[in-house]
Amino acid sequence: MSRAYNFSPGPAMLPEPVLRQAQATMLEFGDTGASILEISHRGADFLAVARQAEADLRTLLSIPDDYAVIFTSGGATTVQALLPLNFAAPGQAADYVVSGHWGKTALKQAAPCADARTAASSEDGGFRDVPPREQWRLSPDAAYVHVTANETIHGVEWRDIPEVGNAPLIADFSSSIASEPLDVTKFGAIYAGAQKNLGPVGITVLIVRRDLLEREGQPRAPIFDYRAQANAESMLNTPPSWNWYVLGLTVKWMLDEGGVAEFARRNARKAALLYAAIDGSGGYYRNEVATAARSRMNVPFFLHDPALDAAFLSEAKQAGLVALKGHRVLGGMRASLYNAMPEAGVQALVDFMREFQKTHG
Amino acid sequence: MSRAYNFSPGPAMLPEPVLRQAQATMLEFGDTGASILEISHRGADFLAVARQAEADLRTLLSIPDDYAVIFTSGGATTVQALLPLNFAAPGQAADYVVSGHWGKTALKQAAPCADARTAASSEDGGFRDVPPREQWRLSPDAAYVHVTANETIHGVEWRDIPEVGNAPLIADFSSSIASEPLDVTKFGAIYAGAQKNLGPVGITVLIVRRDLLEREGQPRAPIFDYRAQANAESMLNTPPSWNWYVLGLTVKWMLDEGGVAEFARRNARKAALLYAAIDGSGGYYRNEVATAARSRMNVPFFLHDPALDAAFLSEAKQAGLVALKGHRVLGGMRASLYNAMPEAGVQALVDFMREFQKTHG
Repeated sequence: MSRAYNFSPGPAMLPEPVLRQAQATMLEFGDTGASILEISHRGADFLAVARQAEADLRTLLSIPDDYAVIFTSGGATTVQALLPLNFAAPGQAADYVVSGHWGKTALKQAAPCADARTAASSEDGGFRDVPPREQWRLSPDAAYVHVTANETIHGVEWRDIPEVGNAPLIADFSSSIASEPLDVTKFGAIYAGAQKNLGPVGITVLIVRRDLLEREGQPRAPIFDYRAQANAESMLNTPPSWNWYVLGLTVKWMLDEGGVAEFARRNARKAALLYAAIDGSGGYYRNEVATAARSRMNVPFFLHDPALDAAFLSEAKQAGLVALKGHRVLGGMRASLYNAMPEAGVQALVDFMREFQKTHG
Repeated sequence: MSRAYNFSPGPAMLPEPVLRQAQATMLEFGDTGASILEISHRGADFLAVARQAEADLRTLLSIPDDYAVIFTSGGATTVQALLPLNFAAPGQAADYVVSGHWGKTALKQAAPCADARTAASSEDGGFRDVPPREQWRLSPDAAYVHVTANETIHGVEWRDIPEVGNAPLIADFSSSIASEPLDVTKFGAIYAGAQKNLGPVGITVLIVRRDLLEREGQPRAPIFDYRAQANAESMLNTPPSWNWYVLGLTVKWMLDEGGVAEFARRNARKAALLYAAIDGSGGYYRNEVATAARSRMNVPFFLHDPALDAAFLSEAKQAGLVALKGHRVLGGMRASLYNAMPEAGVQALVDFMREFQKTHG
C-alpha cells in the first residue's frame, strides 16, 4: 500500500518532508563524504546539527536560558529512573500525581531510590479523569512533584496543570510536548520521548532548570549525572546522533509550519472533529473520559459491540487508516493525533467511522 | 564530494547496501503504509524485524541458547553503569583489567555501586600494551572480571583474552565484535555499542549467560533490570527500533559476505597492509603499540613531525580519505578498519601515505 494515515501512538507518524530529507542524506550528508549515520558526533558537521536542533527547540518551546536542554537515550522511562538519583536525597519523599498508566510507571521507576508517594490518583475511577487539585496530598519535604501531562493509553490530559507550591514540578510531556504553547517556567523539569510529537524513536529530551542540576542527588554512575551531561552538551558518550538529526528536522518543520500556536489550533480542530463524531454516533462509538480531561493527542474509543472490532480494523486499513487498535490495557480503538497527523487524516477517519456505522449498524 | 573511504572510529562507515536498504524503506516499510520509523515496536511487522536481527546475530556470533541477547540504548557506557547493579552485591568487589581509556571508563562507571578494583593496568607504559596475565591481581570474591577486548583510542587489542578462573569474565567488545570468530562460552557477558562493527549508532548489544541474570544485584529501577529486559525481549519500553532495524540489515550483510571467518581474513589483511606501510616508512610514520597487542580495528599513528598533521588531513580528504584525525587524548592520526571498510580503502590509504611522504619528505 502507499503511505497511510497512521494513528500509531508512538513510534508515530512523521511529516513526509522530514522523512524525505532523512532519505536524501542517507548516503551522503553535506560535504562529509559519508552518511550522517557514519560521522563522528564530535566533528564540526554533527555538532552544527546538534546545536541547531537545540536552538530550534528552544525557539519552538520558548525555553529560557536558565533551563538546560539534554538530549538522551533510553526513553522517558530511563529519565523516570534517573529523576530521584539526580534530584532527591537518599530516602527523600517524591510526590506522584497519577492520572493513568504512565504516571504509575513513573512512580515505579523512582521507588527503588526515593520515598515515592502517590499524592493523588484517579485509578479508582478507571483513570477516566485527572485527580482534582484539592485531593492532592503533597508532602512538605518532597524533592519534587511529578505529573503526567498527557496519558497516552488512557487518553487523559491535564488542560491546566495546577500549581504545587515550593517543590519543583516535574512533568512527563512525552505525548503532548509541542502540541500547544507551554509555559516552561512553571516547571522544574519537562521530559519527553521524541517518538510522538518531536520526531523519531530513539531519543529523549529533558528540559531542566539549571538550579536543580546543582542538587547532590544520590551516588550514581557518571553517565547518569544530568549536570555532567548538560555540561558536556549531552555527549558524555556517543549520543543517538542520527535520531538527534531527525528530531532537528522535525522541530524545524514545526517552526516552518507556524510553531506551537499554529499546532494548538490544528490539534484543537482535529480533536473536536473526532470527539464530535464519537459523541454524535448515538452510542455506536463511545469515549469514557471526563470531557474536561479528554486528550487532544490520544483518543481511545470503543465500538458498542466488541465483536465488530476486527472488522473495523480490517476495513479501516483497506481505507488507508492504520494503527487504530487500542492498547492491550484498555482494548477497543485508539486514534493518536500528533502534530504530523493532518486534518485530512482525521476527516478521513470520521468519514470512515460514519460509513462503518451505516454498513454494520 | 561523493562517498569517501571513511576511517571514523564510530559512528563509522557502514556497508553501502545497508544504507541503500535503509534509504529505500524510509517512507514505506513493506505493507505497513508507513516508514519503519513510524510503526509500533509491539506490532507484528517490527517484531519480525527485531527477532530476525537477534536470530541472525546468534548465527553470526554462534551465540548458544543459554545466553540471552539484549538490545538496549545508552551505549556501552550505560551497560558499564548497570553491570554492578545487576551482577554485584552491594559493596562486592569487581575486578577491572585496564588496557586503555575505555577500561578506565568502565571502572569509573562501576565505582559508585561496587568495590571496583584495578586488577591490572598498562597505564604506566602509556597503554601501549596489554597487562600480562601474570601481573593480574584478582580478588577471590569478585563479582566479575572486566576486560576491554579492543581499546578504540589506544589501539590495543587482546589477541587471546586469558582465563580468569571462577568469576565470570565480562568484556567490552564495542570496537571488535564480529571482526573474527569469538568463543562466547568463555564469557559471562559481552557487550558492544553497535556503531562500529554492528551497524548504526543508537543501539547497544548485551550478550549475557542466563545464570548471571538470576543474580540479585542491587536495588535498581525496573527499567535497569537486565533479567526483566531479557524476559521482555528488550521491550520493557520503546526500544530504538529504527536503529535495531539497521543493525539487523548490517548483521545480514555480514552473513551474506561470509560471516566472521571471512571478516577475520579480510581484517587481518587490512591491518597487515597498514602496519607494514607504517613500519616500512623509515620512521616517517610510527605506531607505538607492542606488536602482539596491535589492534586490527583501530590503528593510531603519528607523523614524524606533528607540524605536518594539518596538511596530511587536508590532502587525505582531497584524496577521498576522511576522518583520520586521532583522538584528542593521543593526537596524531587514527585509521579505523571495521568490517565495512573495504580492502581497497586501506590500499588507497597506504598509497596516499607513501605519496605524502614523497611529497613532504
